[in-house]
Amino acid sequence: MPRALHSRSPAVSDPHSDLPTVVRRSSSGLGPSAPVLQVRRPMASYGVSFAPVATAVHVLGVLVLALILYWVIAFRGGVTLWGSAPALIFNAHPVIMFGGFIFVSSEAILVYKTLSGTKRSKKLVHMSLQAIAFLLALVGIWAALKFHLDSNIDNFYSLHSWLGIFTVVLFFIQWIAGFFSFWTQSVAGSTRAAVLPWHVFFGIGAYVLAVATAVLGFLEKITFLQSGSLGHYASEAMFVNTVALLVVVFGFVTVLAILIPAPKEEDGYQAIE
Amino acid sequence: MPRALHSRSPAVSDPHSDLPTVVRRSSSGLGPSAPVLQVRRPMASYGVSFAPVATAVHVLGVLVLALILYWVIAFRGGVTLWGSAPALIFNAHPVIMFGGFIFVSSEAILVYKTLSGTKRSKKLVHMSLQAIAFLLALVGIWAALKFHLDSNIDNFYSLHSWLGIFTVVLFFIQWIAGFFSFWTQSVAGSTRAAVLPWHVFFGIGAYVLAVATAVLGFLEKITFLQSGSLGHYASEAMFVNTVALLVVVFGFVTVLAILIPAPKEEDGYQAIE
Repeated sequence: MPRALHSRSPAVSDPHSDLPTVVRRSSSGLGPSAPVLQVRRPMASYGVSFAPVATAVHVLGVLVLALILYWVIAFRGGVTLWGSAPALIFNAHPVIMFGGFIFVSSEAILVYKTLSGTKRSKKLVHMSLQAIAFLLALVGIWAALKFHLDSNIDNFYSLHSWLGIFTVVLFFIQWIAGFFSFWTQSVAGSTRAAVLPWHVFFGIGAYVLAVATAVLGFLEKITFLQSGSLGHYASEAMFVNTVALLVVVFGFVTVLAILIPAPKEEDGYQAIE
Repeated sequence: MPRALHSRSPAVSDPHSDLPTVVRRSSSGLGPSAPVLQVRRPMASYGVSFAPVATAVHVLGVLVLALILYWVIAFRGGVTLWGSAPALIFNAHPVIMFGGFIFVSSEAILVYKTLSGTKRSKKLVHMSLQAIAFLLALVGIWAALKFHLDSNIDNFYSLHSWLGIFTVVLFFIQWIAGFFSFWTQSVAGSTRAAVLPWHVFFGIGAYVLAVATAVLGFLEKITFLQSGSLGHYASEAMFVNTVALLVVVFGFVTVLAILIPAPKEEDGYQAIE
């Protein structure tokens, strides 16, 4: 995602614009970066710096994970990956899909701005974290599948499951394409340059889809419970709805962190990198 | 959303990048626009031009609207906004929320690239369409509410309704803030420049949220039907799941159209605007 830096500069004006002149500089932070101008007082166009937004991602991620754990333990009888209680194994599904898949993936996306070091070391951390996120997603899917199989429930009929499969397939394609394009660099440079914006687009797209799928999962589970004995305004329903809203907020803040320039670019003058 | 134009230029290189050097130029298309460089062969960084993507938005929008109409007419007994059949009035809800709110809003967002004319005329069309989308959303919400009231069903307990309220409130705030910032320009220029990226961020955010809320609605309705007599793999369930996936695809294509530069910027050399 390109970043925009602001500076008032009477030398470059845009007669079509009725807003103060803004000089912008693009830098993806996720790939090719070629400053096109040295601006006088570079400033994040959003007016907020990266650090507090990144902190909000970390804190919200841990908070939501804790709330999901609280839900399955306090309301749903606990959570396990072993043993013969299908319902408790199912409870690992939301915990792992959020804590392992979505949260780890959001940290993997932000690695290019949260870590210092060479671009290649950041790439290594990025693709390692995304690999961990993907493998944890498979474990999370297995937990739901095992519950279904052990309980004789149909599989893959719901929109939640359809979108979930769509998401992990897109995630897998992204990982493979990213690996060969940007790590082993098995393709021509011009192809890598062409792949990059699509990698970012479908990467953020898959991430937003994962968040949306999680929200669908919360709705599906609560609707199942409410077609049984759970009241429409039961405290569990209100609790889970609130957690789902926090997941949405978490998604918003993560995408904002993706769009905001990294701190190193907010230190006044900077040379052509 | 900034646009990126590519050009190989050995004069500006980035030693940190292992990709071919890319010269980027930013232009929001939704506000201040100040080209920082004339690039030699401007080209959309995504490698596709705007026109076919915009066409896909129009065509997919009409297709999804037609499929939703087919669903409520062929499977759900029809649709009306008048009369005493609450279920048929409810059926207006998905039709209006997609066709009136989401589709009209997506066209409103793209107005800056699909229409020619002055920036002020585009703004007028943009905010008029967004006003229509918002008013239609209120009609769509009324349809669901009337069905609930007439059928003695609880209101606003589901995650779908919570996210829906969240979305229209965000939409309303966006409209008001946009009106005073960019139409009447009742605030200082520096404030307008500060508001713009947030208007774009929360505008696209509200749009994505609307798409996600629609998908939640499809899941909720089908889950209700399946807690009754509808089979897990019934043709209606598979049909609605497919329509919901198309809504997701529609959302992806719309966001892509937002990110891709407008045609006028792909015609080779261009002067500083």
